[in-house]
Amino acid sequence: MFMKSVGLIVEYNPLHNGHAYHLQASKKASGADVAICVMSGYFLQRGEPASFSRRTRTEMALAAGADLVVELPYAYSTQHAHWFARGAVSILDDLFADEFYFGSEAGSIQNFHELDAFMQNHHSPLQKNVRDHLASGVSFPAAQAKAFHDVDPPEHLPDLSKPNNILGYHYVKAARQLGATINANTIPRIHAQYHDEVLPEGQSIASATAIRKILSKHADVSLIRPYVPPMVYEKMEQFYEKGQPMHTWNDYYQFLQLLLSTRSSDALAQIYEAEEGLENRFIKTALKQPTFQNFMNTAKTKRYTWTRLQRLAVHMLTGTTKTDIDKVFGSEARPRDIRILGFNEPGRKYLNAVKNRTPLSLYNRPPKRKNTQQTLDERAARAYFAILSGTKRVEKWQDEYAQPPVYLEKED
Amino acid sequence: MFMKSVGLIVEYNPLHNGHAYHLQASKKASGADVAICVMSGYFLQRGEPASFSRRTRTEMALAAGADLVVELPYAYSTQHAHWFARGAVSILDDLFADEFYFGSEAGSIQNFHELDAFMQNHHSPLQKNVRDHLASGVSFPAAQAKAFHDVDPPEHLPDLSKPNNILGYHYVKAARQLGATINANTIPRIHAQYHDEVLPEGQSIASATAIRKILSKHADVSLIRPYVPPMVYEKMEQFYEKGQPMHTWNDYYQFLQLLLSTRSSDALAQIYEAEEGLENRFIKTALKQPTFQNFMNTAKTKRYTWTRLQRLAVHMLTGTTKTDIDKVFGSEARPRDIRILGFNEPGRKYLNAVKNRTPLSLYNRPPKRKNTQQTLDERAARAYFAILSGTKRVEKWQDEYAQPPVYLEKED
Repeated sequence: MFMKSVGLIVEYNPLHNGHAYHLQASKKASGADVAICVMSGYFLQRGEPASFSRRTRTEMALAAGADLVVELPYAYSTQHAHWFARGAVSILDDLFADEFYFGSEAGSIQNFHELDAFMQNHHSPLQKNVRDHLASGVSFPAAQAKAFHDVDPPEHLPDLSKPNNILGYHYVKAARQLGATINANTIPRIHAQYHDEVLPEGQSIASATAIRKILSKHADVSLIRPYVPPMVYEKMEQFYEKGQPMHTWNDYYQFLQLLLSTRSSDALAQIYEAEEGLENRFIKTALKQPTFQNFMNTAKTKRYTWTRLQRLAVHMLTGTTKTDIDKVFGSEARPRDIRILGFNEPGRKYLNAVKNRTPLSLYNRPPKRKNTQQTLDERAARAYFAILSGTKRVEKWQDEYAQPPVYLEKED
Repeated sequence: MFMKSVGLIVEYNPLHNGHAYHLQASKKASGADVAICVMSGYFLQRGEPASFSRRTRTEMALAAGADLVVELPYAYSTQHAHWFARGAVSILDDLFADEFYFGSEAGSIQNFHELDAFMQNHHSPLQKNVRDHLASGVSFPAAQAKAFHDVDPPEHLPDLSKPNNILGYHYVKAARQLGATINANTIPRIHAQYHDEVLPEGQSIASATAIRKILSKHADVSLIRPYVPPMVYEKMEQFYEKGQPMHTWNDYYQFLQLLLSTRSSDALAQIYEAEEGLENRFIKTALKQPTFQNFMNTAKTKRYTWTRLQRLAVHMLTGTTKTDIDKVFGSEARPRDIRILGFNEPGRKYLNAVKNRTPLSLYNRPPKRKNTQQTLDERAARAYFAILSGTKRVEKWQDEYAQPPVYLEKED
């Protein structure tokens, strides 16, 4: 390969200094010419609408140093860690990225490989323990974490109760299971924890969650200035000047309520992730609760994680059925048709170099005749912009979804 | 029967002087002790949300002189004239109303009976003509009107191109087909035409369409004072003081767009009245049109009437499938479970007198275990209030749907 490349798996919701650090550090550590980001589109892994649109986040990624941004299709982006990781790693491998870097609480890739091996070696007892813990009524991730501790893992293995370690483990496992030639790597996360909601004073690193919280509570966008790269900040300022709101779940709750209160429970049971009568619990709850926060607090049980339930709610919005996902995954569950979201000049050169060799079918704009994976992406975009009114919805949808990739000219 | 009763089939959207006249004239002409109104609930025959809620319109009916108001179930209310008439006449007959009165452009019931006989005698040529006209691409009602003229009907028969004559014909036909003991009667409509949109100056009769138009364009509710009974006017004033908006199709358009842009065309094809690929035409149109008016203007073809398309749109909102309607209609298509919406003292006495003899199962509040007909009514109520925000939606839904019937005390 004439250009060395490094891959990152991102959501950038929004892109902050921690992300920018990770991007630059990955490029430096790998000595890569080109950084490829696989980015989720309109709905994210935790079952939330992206606060900022796909195009905006693509521009942020390029501004922060990404050379090529491609989309992680909806069928993989709003998913359990297992499918999310498999989709993303598969794309990076098929784009011939030499390695990929993920951020983790435990910063050594060797430990992740050992964890993966340990999990394989203890497969049967782990499975049994997971079943036992599930039977006691806890959630699947909690059962996994407990099962893991039950088999007494060596202390240096990454702790599977931390979200970024879970993702990291699934990345490493996915690469192995896919027989990928791409090498996994990790960079220790600095300062902010994934779920931190408080902005650390006098520091330049804050979590995306903390940044979104500030933006949703205060009209003053300048409060986030210390925590995002200057070019991202400029973009956010423009965004706020135009009066474009962040998309939050509460904006979509009225739609969810309509669906839950008018569709039959048989129809809702066909939605992906509607298991064990969750659709009936959702129906009952939606009829009584005035806000999405109340809805989630009431629908939540020990058995299902918040993110698991949010993903189900997203699939209801987008009308994604079990049959749809079965069709997309087929026999191999590897994404094949990948949309290019943006690139700069090195990214363009890289694309030209790989386009005839990659097993992926790369495309700039959605084709007229869409396969099921592309249909789900389209529906996600439509659902995402459904909260806007009148002509704005139609315009935005065309602007953000039907346009060619973002091209960032090199600034010299 | 110890009390003589007269039936009316109404929407009262809103109730105006023409309706009040028709009510009083029917009572007088029939010499009835009790006037029974069969009233549509949340969505109307022309495929529109009721501008005012079911409860408000029930109160209007009682204030204008109705003694008993029962609901025409959704499965019959948002329907072709054939099913609408069959449902309403069946209920009135099963409530032992001695006769029912409808308003018509042609004011003689004898002419409607002759029309019904004429239609039977010319059944075969009429059917053939309808098929031929349909093949030329016109709408079903237009084909029927043309076919009717082709067989050269006697001039005194009611003109089947006028909407109230079409309904009248279906009422008379329904009574015959049901083997009903109820007698059909008609009262000539006075002044305003069904579709009139201009308020006639210096007159006390205006169409409901004209009144809604005024209310939607002007904040000044007093403009409609000349055209509605004083008690209805008071109610409308209160309504406007509370800032409760009229429900219009445009309020629901965002929901319709979400459904059309995210559900599969296979799923949408299951909706009642989605025939000949109409669902695909709807999908294509919803993606581009910013308002419901634009949507309808673009979706409209010669082949389908405006009301036919609006009804399909309503069924999409309420999630009513072909299977649902098949289940409700069963082998006989006669409504059996009927909700009582309101009554005064004579109405209460009448109910007591008929309740043990009627084949209907009359109920005050919806039961926990609902049959399909009742489930459709419930979904219609939920969809109807879906446009309200937060706690208001939940409150209104409970207020308007779950409460016992309205009881109007006799004012002496």
